[in-house]
Amino acid sequence: MTSDTRRVGLAIFGVGRMGQVHLGSILRMTTAHLKYIVEDNLQLGQEIARKNLVNDEVKVIRSQDDDQVFQDASIEGIIICTPTHLHEGLVRRGLKSAKAVFCEKPLAGSTEIIEACYKDAEKYNKPLLCAFNRRFDPGLCLMKQRLVQGEVGEVQCIKRCNRDNPPPTVEFLKMSGGIFQDQGIHDIDAVCWTIGEYPVSVFTQAHAFRKEIADCDDVDQVIIVMKFPSGCIASIDLSRHAVYGYDQRMEIFGSKGMLEQQNKAPTSIVHHNESGACKNPIEVSFLQRYGEAYELELQHFINVVLGIEKEILVKKEEVIQICQITSACEESYRTGKPIFMSSFQTGAI
Amino acid sequence: MTSDTRRVGLAIFGVGRMGQVHLGSILRMTTAHLKYIVEDNLQLGQEIARKNLVNDEVKVIRSQDDDQVFQDASIEGIIICTPTHLHEGLVRRGLKSAKAVFCEKPLAGSTEIIEACYKDAEKYNKPLLCAFNRRFDPGLCLMKQRLVQGEVGEVQCIKRCNRDNPPPTVEFLKMSGGIFQDQGIHDIDAVCWTIGEYPVSVFTQAHAFRKEIADCDDVDQVIIVMKFPSGCIASIDLSRHAVYGYDQRMEIFGSKGMLEQQNKAPTSIVHHNESGACKNPIEVSFLQRYGEAYELELQHFINVVLGIEKEILVKKEEVIQICQITSACEESYRTGKPIFMSSFQTGAI
Amino acid sequence: MTSDTRRVGLAIFGVGRMGQVHLGSILRMTTAHLKYIVEDNLQLGQEIARKNLVNDEVKVIRSQDDDQVFQDASIEGIIICTPTHLHEGLVRRGLKSAKAVFCEKPLAGSTEIIEACYKDAEKYNKPLLCAFNRRFDPGLCLMKQRLVQGEVGEVQCIKRCNRDNPPPTVEFLKMSGGIFQDQGIHDIDAVCWTIGEYPVSVFTQAHAFRKEIADCDDVDQVIIVMKFPSGCIASIDLSRHAVYGYDQRMEIFGSKGMLEQQNKAPTSIVHHNESGACKNPIEVSFLQRYGEAYELELQHFINVVLGIEKEILVKKEEVIQICQITSACEESYRTGKPIFMSSFQTGAI
Amino acid sequence: MTSDTRRVGLAIFGVGRMGQVHLGSILRMTTAHLKYIVEDNLQLGQEIARKNLVNDEVKVIRSQDDDQVFQDASIEGIIICTPTHLHEGLVRRGLKSAKAVFCEKPLAGSTEIIEACYKDAEKYNKPLLCAFNRRFDPGLCLMKQRLVQGEVGEVQCIKRCNRDNPPPTVEFLKMSGGIFQDQGIHDIDAVCWTIGEYPVSVFTQAHAFRKEIADCDDVDQVIIVMKFPSGCIASIDLSRHAVYGYDQRMEIFGSKGMLEQQNKAPTSIVHHNESGACKNPIEVSFLQRYGEAYELELQHFINVVLGIEKEILVKKEEVIQICQITSACEESYRTGKPIFMSSFQTGAI
Repeated sequence: MTSDTRRVGLAIFGVGRMGQVHLGSILRMTTAHLKYIVEDNLQLGQEIARKNLVNDEVKVIRSQDDDQVFQDASIEGIIICTPTHLHEGLVRRGLKSAKAVFCEKPLAGSTEIIEACYKDAEKYNKPLLCAFNRRFDPGLCLMKQRLVQGEVGEVQCIKRCNRDNPPPTVEFLKMSGGIFQDQGIHDIDAVCWTIGEYPVSVFTQAHAFRKEIADCDDVDQVIIVMKFPSGCIASIDLSRHAVYGYDQRMEIFGSKGMLEQQNKAPTSIVHHNESGACKNPIEVSFLQRYGEAYELELQHFINVVLGIEKEILVKKEEVIQICQITSACEESYRTGKPIFMSSFQTGAI
Repeated sequence: MTSDTRRVGLAIFGVGRMGQVHLGSILRMTTAHLKYIVEDNLQLGQEIARKNLVNDEVKVIRSQDDDQVFQDASIEGIIICTPTHLHEGLVRRGLKSAKAVFCEKPLAGSTEIIEACYKDAEKYNKPLLCAFNRRFDPGLCLMKQRLVQGEVGEVQCIKRCNRDNPPPTVEFLKMSGGIFQDQGIHDIDAVCWTIGEYPVSVFTQAHAFRKEIADCDDVDQVIIVMKFPSGCIASIDLSRHAVYGYDQRMEIFGSKGMLEQQNKAPTSIVHHNESGACKNPIEVSFLQRYGEAYELELQHFINVVLGIEKEILVKKEEVIQICQITSACEESYRTGKPIFMSSFQTGAI
Repeated sequence: MTSDTRRVGLAIFGVGRMGQVHLGSILRMTTAHLKYIVEDNLQLGQEIARKNLVNDEVKVIRSQDDDQVFQDASIEGIIICTPTHLHEGLVRRGLKSAKAVFCEKPLAGSTEIIEACYKDAEKYNKPLLCAFNRRFDPGLCLMKQRLVQGEVGEVQCIKRCNRDNPPPTVEFLKMSGGIFQDQGIHDIDAVCWTIGEYPVSVFTQAHAFRKEIADCDDVDQVIIVMKFPSGCIASIDLSRHAVYGYDQRMEIFGSKGMLEQQNKAPTSIVHHNESGACKNPIEVSFLQRYGEAYELELQHFINVVLGIEKEILVKKEEVIQICQITSACEESYRTGKPIFMSSFQTGAI
Repeated sequence: MTSDTRRVGLAIFGVGRMGQVHLGSILRMTTAHLKYIVEDNLQLGQEIARKNLVNDEVKVIRSQDDDQVFQDASIEGIIICTPTHLHEGLVRRGLKSAKAVFCEKPLAGSTEIIEACYKDAEKYNKPLLCAFNRRFDPGLCLMKQRLVQGEVGEVQCIKRCNRDNPPPTVEFLKMSGGIFQDQGIHDIDAVCWTIGEYPVSVFTQAHAFRKEIADCDDVDQVIIVMKFPSGCIASIDLSRHAVYGYDQRMEIFGSKGMLEQQNKAPTSIVHHNESGACKNPIEVSFLQRYGEAYELELQHFINVVLGIEKEILVKKEEVIQICQITSACEESYRTGKPIFMSSFQTGAI
């Protein structure tokens, strides 16, 4: 068998919402071979295996039995989709056992833990991918590429919008880490990554319109303003509920023009009547909008394991910086003041 | 193992352009199990099997050895993607061997053969699906559904556009059967199926701008006008080459409004500069534009085999009528006269 | 007073619907000076003068007294907006009295009369403008200009759509001359003028959905197909009633691309909710959509009188040809056959 | 002569850029009668009168001779388009002479002067209109109306964009009063007026990319964030130069949906080729984009003078508040801190 037909043996930890997304991608990929589902809700794990017709080939086990995964030499990579507090343990055990590690964002709640994880990745010389999935959105990649090619000239302003739909449940909100860590981090990363700079200061204005969200000490409407070393100014607006669909747009203004990423829609039907011309709704949620990005993100991970791609696209320093900026945005909201990023090195990514 | 985990054993005949499309769909489906590739270009068949990492599980054989497929009881369905003149033989052998049959359009070149195929399907009580793939385009399905719900009231006019890209090669053109049979048939079917009527008369105006096409006694620009029993008038325009991408649009005008299906695009990026606002190109070819429809079409076939869906969506009478209308459109072009559809029953589908 | 401040003395004949449009344009133009309103409904004429605050400066008279207009040397131009059967008399009296003549389309019902009118224009050396107003639509002018510059390469296909709104009254329908003469003539002219060719053959398919229209021996849905000497094929679709607004679009397909003229809307508001994204309606009727063209058309006439522009943009031969093609389209509908344009010189405009 | 034919006698002060816009509107209005142009550049004034063919009817005088305007009882209204420092004198002399006064924004540089002007308006019981012209944009009016009707439910976020084109000259920049007073004031007014609230705090981030602008101690890129008593958050982004045209957009996000005002374009032509689909540019500058609003604004003023409309739509309190908020936005940029609006009454307009 030649190298182009090799399949990567994989185990997935957690088959909740995100776990199921990644499991679906794995099964569609002929370069991936899923061997374990680690899930404490055994019944859920088995049901998912059966529905996907892989119950004969995939072992469904509890986390208490997960040693066999780490000891199984045919497993080259693990996919971590558990709650955040379990990330560190799995990441580090995986790396120590010489597995490549794919971990849902946020990698961890503190800079120290993130650094410890990456130190292990270096020590054991294994890839560690923190899943900042926007970077795998073909549209955003094209935006960045065209920006780099100079299409808008000098970048002077950037606006990004992330208005969620459907509204998260109260259960989810309580364990989400808050709108900044759960939702805003993606946009802070997308903005910084696209223009290749970290901000010198951030300012946030926010409000909770929904009582349950105020009760969680969280907010549901946010505007973040960032100032960059180049002079570029950025705004990000977040909402927990856009009734008209999952609103994900970006505009980059430069000396030579503007690049805009519009929303996507599942169909392109327009109904014209006395009221005007009504387009069918945009993608309803992140699952549809970023489905392709989730698949490409996992493909990238597999490709790195296979040696087809050489470098993990999300770097250690980026993960640390983006987490710190996200925390600064939240701090600005809580203090009512702009936060200056003196504590770490700003400038070009 | 419960019924929801059963996989349908399949053989595919021909892995040229369309065969590769369907093979890709089969491999992504956990309800399908590909066992044979029948392809006289054995090297091509083997390469495709290896690239898709199924060379261990799939037998690649020549057509002279295809008896084993028909004798293999684990094969429940066959997918026919060979040149048209081979369709009849494979369809009828498949049905006789108690296989469900999926056959690329056109099923055959004559009404007699089409009828013979369907007679066999009835005799052996096996599903026969002629792959009119537009019917599986989610957008078109939604158009029809909204039409039926009365969204535009009485349908008075319908316009459909099918402008191909990239331009076909001369080799393809020579064996394509001509723009009417190869390209126009899809739109004639889409129009009739959407409004639920067959025309009483057709008129065609056409021209060959490209010399190679004129040399094939074919044309590259066509406008077809159809008149329906209800009074509704339809136009279809065809082109062999739209440099701006694969142009596939439809407009349905009624007493209460208009329904429009616009083109689709892979990304939603707009570049604004002094020249205006430039949207990224639409889908470049049928592979991208109808990729989802090809997958859903095959899924429908598998579902019928599994008993999840009861009825084949493309009916015998429809296949015969659409082929006759397509031939009448071509005849109108060749004679310069409108053709009246007196020879068969017009009216509601 | 220098030449750039000269005002052209004008009389208007008929202040019905179109007369009021042109009267409004005249009053907004500082180069025009309205002196007479000739209108048999004297009360209507006076009311319009008073509403526009020109009752002190403008004489309102009956047609029986219109000799004074033709004898008034300060009148340089007349604007004819009467019923069609009165056109010939006024046009020829005007030209004979050395007035420039602006006449609503159609100039007359027969080629002979049209030729007689133009013969007088030549004899008395005065401008005669038949108001084919689409030619003054800035969008269409830009389309033609970009076509001529080669933006789409060789023109291969052209589609034009003219779907009227609001639906005309039965009274209007009875005296309209029929959908071909009243409505289709504009699009036949627009297509021929844009691509610079006259057709070699035309074919029409049509239907009357509304009973009152059938009762007038007229139709309300039309598709016209034209074939041009270059090989280019065109379709025009007409409707008497588009509930979603006055639908006026055009697409020109060529070897290098496609030029599209979309509808216009009075505002650019979009409402996004669960049902999708709803744009405000397009322009509701010809008055709004072509308001600018009506004004530019009259400005062109005034400019020709002032010598600022040298040539009338609508030529004698064009008016005759377009009227004959329009009649051929109607004949095709009535006979059910394609009509070949052997009777007059086809080819480049 | 009945009241519906009365014309309002007018004098215009200053026929620079804005003066010429308003002079054009006056001449197209049959309810207005321009009698004086007051302009110290006498040659410019005379040339404009001649070009507009009103040199026989309109007196062109220097400001030193403007007493005759104030003493002329046939003058009912004056239109002030002079540099800002001359506004106060003309406004107050006009009111004292019982003229209605239309004055370009900003009315004056200080709250005290603004209040003095309005005190005179009350004292002499004459209308005083400060020309906040966005309020007369039909699109914005429709946005507000639909908001009030509850179309988006509770307003939670609002984004407005004002990116100027063509870039102003250095001469203009020096006397413009800065981007906040010259440009931002319109958007601050538009946002507050649309949602009917004044902010509790503002924060501004800004930068000067163009050296000449930095040299004027001004900026060319601005993002303003405002927080409102209701919890609603707003952002406004300003630029001195959008190469792709005069970018004027607004989005209002609510609990039930989103209302969007898109840019307008002079034509609706789209060119499709290999690069994608390119729309013709949007309106190139404020003259085209807000031409209709300028005309409606003046019409409103005339209507108030004629008694057709009862109330001036721009209120004293609004003018004062908007000026103070604009100054606070500038102060936030200069201090780097959020500014809290404790100094005046916030809340509903």
